[in-house]
Amino acid sequence: MSPKALLFDVFGTCVDWRTSIARAAAALGLPGEPVADAWRARYQPQLDTVRRGEREWVVLDVLHREALDDVLDTLGLELGEAERDELTRAWHRLDPWPDTVAGLTRLKRRYAIAPCSNGHIAQSVNLARYAGLPWDAILGAEIARAYKPQPEVYLASVAALGIEPAEAMMVAAHNGDLVAAAACGLRTAFVARPREYGPGQQSDLRADGDVDVEAADFLALADALGA
Amino acid sequence: MSPKALLFDVFGTCVDWRTSIARAAAALGLPGEPVADAWRARYQPQLDTVRRGEREWVVLDVLHREALDDVLDTLGLELGEAERDELTRAWHRLDPWPDTVAGLTRLKRRYAIAPCSNGHIAQSVNLARYAGLPWDAILGAEIARAYKPQPEVYLASVAALGIEPAEAMMVAAHNGDLVAAAACGLRTAFVARPREYGPGQQSDLRADGDVDVEAADFLALADALGA
Repeated sequence: MSPKALLFDVFGTCVDWRTSIARAAAALGLPGEPVADAWRARYQPQLDTVRRGEREWVVLDVLHREALDDVLDTLGLELGEAERDELTRAWHRLDPWPDTVAGLTRLKRRYAIAPCSNGHIAQSVNLARYAGLPWDAILGAEIARAYKPQPEVYLASVAALGIEPAEAMMVAAHNGDLVAAAACGLRTAFVARPREYGPGQQSDLRADGDVDVEAADFLALADALGA
Repeated sequence: MSPKALLFDVFGTCVDWRTSIARAAAALGLPGEPVADAWRARYQPQLDTVRRGEREWVVLDVLHREALDDVLDTLGLELGEAERDELTRAWHRLDPWPDTVAGLTRLKRRYAIAPCSNGHIAQSVNLARYAGLPWDAILGAEIARAYKPQPEVYLASVAALGIEPAEAMMVAAHNGDLVAAAACGLRTAFVARPREYGPGQQSDLRADGDVDVEAADFLALADALGA
């Protein structure tokens, strides 16, 4: 049986955050890749404080701004307040991978498509408008007020579409995301993004475990799903 | 100053529910327009029970199904359970007005666009896919778990976009919707849909009060908003 909807991880799976953030940082006179890598390295530990209930759910802009202050402090870099705000908003303007828009456009003809991202609605809308991601709806962390891989994020996204978990397929370049989605009953598709973390990437080069589909990019995913 | 986002009423403003529901009812052997009108007449009284806190917020499918049972009973019409479920889903397949898709497509180039409807997310996604409504996000009743004109529906929709109320414009064919939106600080645009309720429509033929824009259709709205 075919799924009715496809849910997508966004950072890394749909868009190349590292190149985009490095470019935005460099445009402000900062060392691009070191800032991008150090910024992203603070991401999961920050989300963990929310997942463990140590702080209330807040939108990613707040976490990104806090982490940027820490990155600049740690790397000994100077940047004014207005530029820090501007650079934080760079997470709303990330380039899609070359196959992303064409693949989503094909997939949308047959399936409802939506992000199931840890990004909030405003960030997701701005990113979709910047990158041309043709979503049918914006689902994910904000409607659940939780962060993946907490099960409520997947389950709230599926419930919002009025379907059962088995009628949805989670698409991600990260094995951990797919393991969590599968535990909630969703089907899973792994799409490799082997340069997400740069040329030396060691993890998530292929699906670790059982997935329903493994595809080289979104066009291959559309082929595999008959779209 | 230009708004950043446009929020749209959907039933009546974007889509012609009466013609579409009458056709779906007639396809099941029922008298089309009497069923459509009787069904819609139960809508606001039903929403009132949620607005007054007499019942928990539920998705519109539940209310539509309850009202359909009452309509058929009142009109003395027979219909099986499966056909009642099918007819309830007709609210997910409503035809757009002739200018709707072309107008939204133009408006989307300049503004973020989203429904701020009493429809739930699943209904809004299915309707958008059926009618070709190119929304950037699905906002409205479900993210607020309230029903317009309760202020939290407008305010939650604006907050989800990360903007201030004055940066959003509510677009509707219903004066009451615009009065409520304006009370929340949103700008307002009235677009007349003089046949929404059929040839004898007496109300909402024009804007009653102060609105920021009054337009004959969505193409005229795009003209007025420079899109």
